[in-house]
Amino acid sequence: MSDNKDESRTEINEVGEFGLIDRIKSGTTLVNESSIAGIGDDAAVIDAGDHVKLLSTDMLLEGIHFDLSYVPLKHLGYKAVASNVSDIAAMNGIAEQITISIAISNRFSLEAIDKLYEGINAACKAYKVDLVGGDTVSSQSGLIISVSVIGRTDKDKISFRSGAGLKDIICVTGDIGGAYIGLQVLEREKQVFLENKGMSPKLGDYEYIVGRQLKPEARMDIIHELREMDVRPTSMIDLSDGLASDLMHLCKSSQCGAVIYEDNLPIDKQTYDTAVEFNMDPITCCLNGGEDYELLFTISQDDHEKLKNHPDIHFIGFSEMQEKGINLVTKGGNTVEIKAQGWVHF
Amino acid sequence: MSDNKDESRTEINEVGEFGLIDRIKSGTTLVNESSIAGIGDDAAVIDAGDHVKLLSTDMLLEGIHFDLSYVPLKHLGYKAVASNVSDIAAMNGIAEQITISIAISNRFSLEAIDKLYEGINAACKAYKVDLVGGDTVSSQSGLIISVSVIGRTDKDKISFRSGAGLKDIICVTGDIGGAYIGLQVLEREKQVFLENKGMSPKLGDYEYIVGRQLKPEARMDIIHELREMDVRPTSMIDLSDGLASDLMHLCKSSQCGAVIYEDNLPIDKQTYDTAVEFNMDPITCCLNGGEDYELLFTISQDDHEKLKNHPDIHFIGFSEMQEKGINLVTKGGNTVEIKAQGWVHF
Repeated sequence: MSDNKDESRTEINEVGEFGLIDRIKSGTTLVNESSIAGIGDDAAVIDAGDHVKLLSTDMLLEGIHFDLSYVPLKHLGYKAVASNVSDIAAMNGIAEQITISIAISNRFSLEAIDKLYEGINAACKAYKVDLVGGDTVSSQSGLIISVSVIGRTDKDKISFRSGAGLKDIICVTGDIGGAYIGLQVLEREKQVFLENKGMSPKLGDYEYIVGRQLKPEARMDIIHELREMDVRPTSMIDLSDGLASDLMHLCKSSQCGAVIYEDNLPIDKQTYDTAVEFNMDPITCCLNGGEDYELLFTISQDDHEKLKNHPDIHFIGFSEMQEKGINLVTKGGNTVEIKAQGWVHF
Repeated sequence: MSDNKDESRTEINEVGEFGLIDRIKSGTTLVNESSIAGIGDDAAVIDAGDHVKLLSTDMLLEGIHFDLSYVPLKHLGYKAVASNVSDIAAMNGIAEQITISIAISNRFSLEAIDKLYEGINAACKAYKVDLVGGDTVSSQSGLIISVSVIGRTDKDKISFRSGAGLKDIICVTGDIGGAYIGLQVLEREKQVFLENKGMSPKLGDYEYIVGRQLKPEARMDIIHELREMDVRPTSMIDLSDGLASDLMHLCKSSQCGAVIYEDNLPIDKQTYDTAVEFNMDPITCCLNGGEDYELLFTISQDDHEKLKNHPDIHFIGFSEMQEKGINLVTKGGNTVEIKAQGWVHF
């Protein structure tokens, strides 16, 4: 009846997620004076007189983004908030308001929804974010969560993806790859459980990395510390897709290349050992594993002194001229081009 | 494996959608100074120095909120934007930024997504709203659209649901019930089509009401005119659930009752005639049919003079003391209590 059938048909996989976003962006124009920056960064930037509001949004689907057979609803609620607060952090901002929309089927009881909101409220409290709205609708299939977050920052403190200068120092917070390896452990234990329902999952030895997957934290602590040390990152992004992919986003926006050193990549021992146990290369896990929600940013060399003794900020390399590409220097001294593998197939 | 199983189980239907929203609201506290108003109105209100930002969000699911067998994707995109702009209008605000997240399966081609965004971009242009962000994810089932919108208004111009005074005049814009009857026509033609694929749908006689369903407009024209006439509605809501349900929301927030007059309800002739054709009571359609996206608001009697000749604003009744309830005076002079039937079952 409707004209939704196509004359010609191009598969979305032919352009990929990032191609689709570029296509959507190319159709938009910003007409309001208050729209300072739109699609293309961790958050949009909206003028609010003496400061700016930051706006970001995410959608999470059961079966795509989470598996309720091993993700407790409380953790899911916490993570939905934390990952969005992280997008505001990535703009050097502080999240203040959030809206959460949920689609649920009659599979979910009121008690289950209470658990989800226990996690949401715990994260709101931890990050001092106010839950100010949302939508509740019925779903024929799984649980869907859509989050929008509003943050604020001063106009002279915004960090875009696009600001990296030449020979800026590339920094990463915390350690990386853990959330990805934690997911592998959870998936393995799920298989064991499905094959033998009497077995209890053995997660004790993997507590840290499973925690990295199930209950990541936004690095608001780093944002506050950077302010105290009077350091504004010249560019910033949060690590949601994985270091390789997110570094490529940052370099593309900043029109630069990068060199990073394998020796400097921060890997937790449990991440390393478990990767080896799974016959995976720990460095590949670090480069391509997503969902760590650490911060990747560049600083001017002038700020090196201020950050060099910070225990949780690691200098992993520096920005280069764009034509040099993005490269990893291995422990053996070889230079290898980095390619992103981070995106989702439709 | 996870602890998502319930000890006891309460069905969500036992509390209903509005009960669930009350439950979620009761778990929230607003800690940021910038959070002026949270859950419970058409939009949250966020301080922005010399003005306020308004924030609203909606989630739309295929099979629940729309049926792609008769809703063209272009119209769907337009309506997703218009219905959210309407939420900002309902706060006496002007929408300026929007984010759109979509979940799509490989059933959708790039050309189909282009059509959806054609509608989104057309609505953004019509309402002068900037598309500044979103999320694109893959779905295992149908199309999901999540929209968040940011608007602005002056602090002395906000209209909450809660501000109606005693004996304020209740106004409604445009005409009502049409979107609901339009949906009945589309559903009927779908059945005819399914039974006989050779039949073309007969929509020509129902153009107006089908248009009301497929391509509603946010009443930004009214918001601008009210400003020009220096009228601030004492309370306001947009008609998404239906007049009865939305009037009850407004009265509950304002802690008042209401009397409305059947004679004064604005019904288009096509709405009336088609309701009769479907053996439905046109007044019931007016009271309980949703998705008209007209504005329902109250004004002080002092503003009566300014609006009395407006061709598209109808005085349908007045507010009363809360203990008198919400009543309809029929053409025959009888008084009937109004009950909402507007909400969705989970």
